[in-house]
Amino acid sequence: MLPMAKSGPGGAPLIDALFTAVSSVCVTGLVVVDTPTYWTGFGEAVILVLIQVGGFGVMTLASVIGLAVIRRMSLRSKLTTSVEVKSAGLEDIGVLLLGVVRVSFVIEAAVMLLLTARFWLGYGRPLPEAAWLGLFHAVSSFNNAGFALFSDNIVSYATDPFICLPLCAATIIGGLGFPVINQLRKHAHNPLRWTMNTRLVLWGTVTLLTLGTLYITVLEWSNPQTLGPLDWPSKILVGFFQSVQTRTSGFNSVDIGQLDGATLLGMDILMFIGGGPAGTAGGIKITTFAVLFFIILAEVRGEAVVNVFGKRLSRAVHRQAIAVALLSVAVVVAATAGIILMTDYDLGPSLFEAISAFATVGLSTGITPHLPIGGQLILIALMIVGRLGPTTFATALALRERQLSYQLPKERPIIG
Amino acid sequence: MLPMAKSGPGGAPLIDALFTAVSSVCVTGLVVVDTPTYWTGFGEAVILVLIQVGGFGVMTLASVIGLAVIRRMSLRSKLTTSVEVKSAGLEDIGVLLLGVVRVSFVIEAAVMLLLTARFWLGYGRPLPEAAWLGLFHAVSSFNNAGFALFSDNIVSYATDPFICLPLCAATIIGGLGFPVINQLRKHAHNPLRWTMNTRLVLWGTVTLLTLGTLYITVLEWSNPQTLGPLDWPSKILVGFFQSVQTRTSGFNSVDIGQLDGATLLGMDILMFIGGGPAGTAGGIKITTFAVLFFIILAEVRGEAVVNVFGKRLSRAVHRQAIAVALLSVAVVVAATAGIILMTDYDLGPSLFEAISAFATVGLSTGITPHLPIGGQLILIALMIVGRLGPTTFATALALRERQLSYQLPKERPIIG
Ligand SMILES: [K+]
Ligand SMILES: [K+]
Repeated sequence: MLPMAKSGPGGAPLIDALFTAVSSVCVTGLVVVDTPTYWTGFGEAVILVLIQVGGFGVMTLASVIGLAVIRRMSLRSKLTTSVEVKSAGLEDIGVLLLGVVRVSFVIEAAVMLLLTARFWLGYGRPLPEAAWLGLFHAVSSFNNAGFALFSDNIVSYATDPFICLPLCAATIIGGLGFPVINQLRKHAHNPLRWTMNTRLVLWGTVTLLTLGTLYITVLEWSNPQTLGPLDWPSKILVGFFQSVQTRTSGFNSVDIGQLDGATLLGMDILMFIGGGPAGTAGGIKITTFAVLFFIILAEVRGEAVVNVFGKRLSRAVHRQAIAVALLSVAVVVAATAGIILMTDYDLGPSLFEAISAFATVGLSTGITPHLPIGGQLILIALMIVGRLGPTTFATALALRERQLSYQLPKERPIIG
Repeated sequence: MLPMAKSGPGGAPLIDALFTAVSSVCVTGLVVVDTPTYWTGFGEAVILVLIQVGGFGVMTLASVIGLAVIRRMSLRSKLTTSVEVKSAGLEDIGVLLLGVVRVSFVIEAAVMLLLTARFWLGYGRPLPEAAWLGLFHAVSSFNNAGFALFSDNIVSYATDPFICLPLCAATIIGGLGFPVINQLRKHAHNPLRWTMNTRLVLWGTVTLLTLGTLYITVLEWSNPQTLGPLDWPSKILVGFFQSVQTRTSGFNSVDIGQLDGATLLGMDILMFIGGGPAGTAGGIKITTFAVLFFIILAEVRGEAVVNVFGKRLSRAVHRQAIAVALLSVAVVVAATAGIILMTDYDLGPSLFEAISAFATVGLSTGITPHLPIGGQLILIALMIVGRLGPTTFATALALRERQLSYQLPKERPIIG
């Protein structure tokens, strides 16, 4: 980044500029410097543009390659996948791009209006400043970036529902993913036409948000460093806010470093799962996790095929979900081991930071700015791999599916 | 346990007696009290008998229900699984039990002879004492129990290959599992007749031992608390010994609490994988892990079926492996969260202890004796669930396999 992006004399060191740029364009939100004090207004605007470009980019990329998969599928078996093609309603790339832009702007504008009004009327900020705060946080939340223009992120506004709930709404909608948003726009009142993808994402989002809110609120209820001092509606608001942010916007309204180790472990899992596919959320995606869940459910029930919401789950998808999930685990564990080796941090904070980077969440126990350059490079690599890896890898797998012309004799080892 | 089992006045508290008994019969080896000083000779003999009974029990149980699965399979499709039935060569339960007893005693006797000779001739112990030490550690290692009659476990003998290598041999052989041992006895020189199970376990064991030795030796090479002060052959001996012990005997020849966090994380994974099925080893089993590995490999290669060593991997097994592995992860993570909640320990030691208990390994960073009773009860539950869970769960799944008479229309969500 240019010297004029940085407050005070001199330019930003290369590693800080690189980290911030990658974190912005990957819509992660991890920071090595304090956003409002370290960067100038121009620097903040650069971050805002990078977030918007990154958000557009990933939604578009994922949607386009999602289209490619669907087309390839429908070429191969018109009958079985035609439902998906029709109801996804994506005629061509141009229409798709226009749709992404329109949806983004409409939702960002709505959230910006709410936030601007609150900063202006509720906190007495001058209108231009309130509008800038509204714009920045609307874009940051809808694109699940988690960058904030306050040094303590959202902690000062932890108990203000007029700030927290619009941020949550933008996070959740952005995290659903474009195919789901698109389908809801067209068939909101006709759930029978929803694809399996839409149903899995919606059910998964509701379930994870509920469980996450319960888990965080109950475990932190009397923690004097976090929810302890708050009245009970505020405890629930903060618990809900923090649960939403694991899906994967990454704002924080409590000090993450003060959460109990067990709370962090639960959030590790929520962040790793992440949001809906082909959206601004990261992680292995709710659908991937849901597929694994339904495979186990079918096994426990002793069913020979995996049925989800009255449809049969394609067998090729089973193996793709396993591959994406387990390779993601391998990447995160290897990176975590690397961070522990380079520092004296324990597994708890190291794993949290690695998952936060990989799933492009941006929540932090506070160790990121103190990592050696090697550790920050690991996080940069994790952000890029986590942003592009699961999506492109799963697509590559799906496009390579083929039938073998012969089969070997079958055999089974002993499991368990 | 009876008062006469405990040194000094009074009986053992219920929780200590319960923990030791469960740890013995589950062949785990986690301890809350110091085995040689806390228990009398009689108490040690009780532990020895519990280990032997537990070892027999789990080998027999797993082999018997393994037989049930194979029979059920062969009833359903004689053609495809007849190879497995033939080469497993298990005619009936009686023959099977006799085989387990004979194999156990032969190997235990051989290891006892080696250890007794060393304690007698190398360390000048009186012959009866040397024989008792030889017997106890032979039974403890072959049954992958990891109990030792020295307060520092095997640390005093860390650099003595005449003690360490027989213990490693017994651990490895016991950890292969009875079906593999049985097949090697009959067809050692005819690898073409080996079942897929035998091949997976042998290849998996060699691979995991090699990678584990490298990982531990390299990471700890200059750690002043562990391998640092040793000469390089001893470094490799200790690295190898500790790698073997994750499969899942659980002796330690270095202070586990002094290992680097990254080393512990690697050992977490090795312990979680564990040993071969239908043996004295714990964990999700090498075969389960290998199945997941080959599924991913087939995905990456874009193959429509999963082929392993020239045979096609039954599809039902894919889903069983996923179910066993992921439910095991869920159990371990939930238990770890429980331990963290009850104490102030960080994720690193808590996860290590939970995996050690679940995979019936018995390695410890040292926190087990200091856990509150609730935490020790969690470990007791983990030992029992880990000992019986994966095996019986996988069997139940395999026995319930059935074909559906109709199929729903197919659909696929977006993965990644
Ligand atoms: K984020
Ligand atoms: K053990």
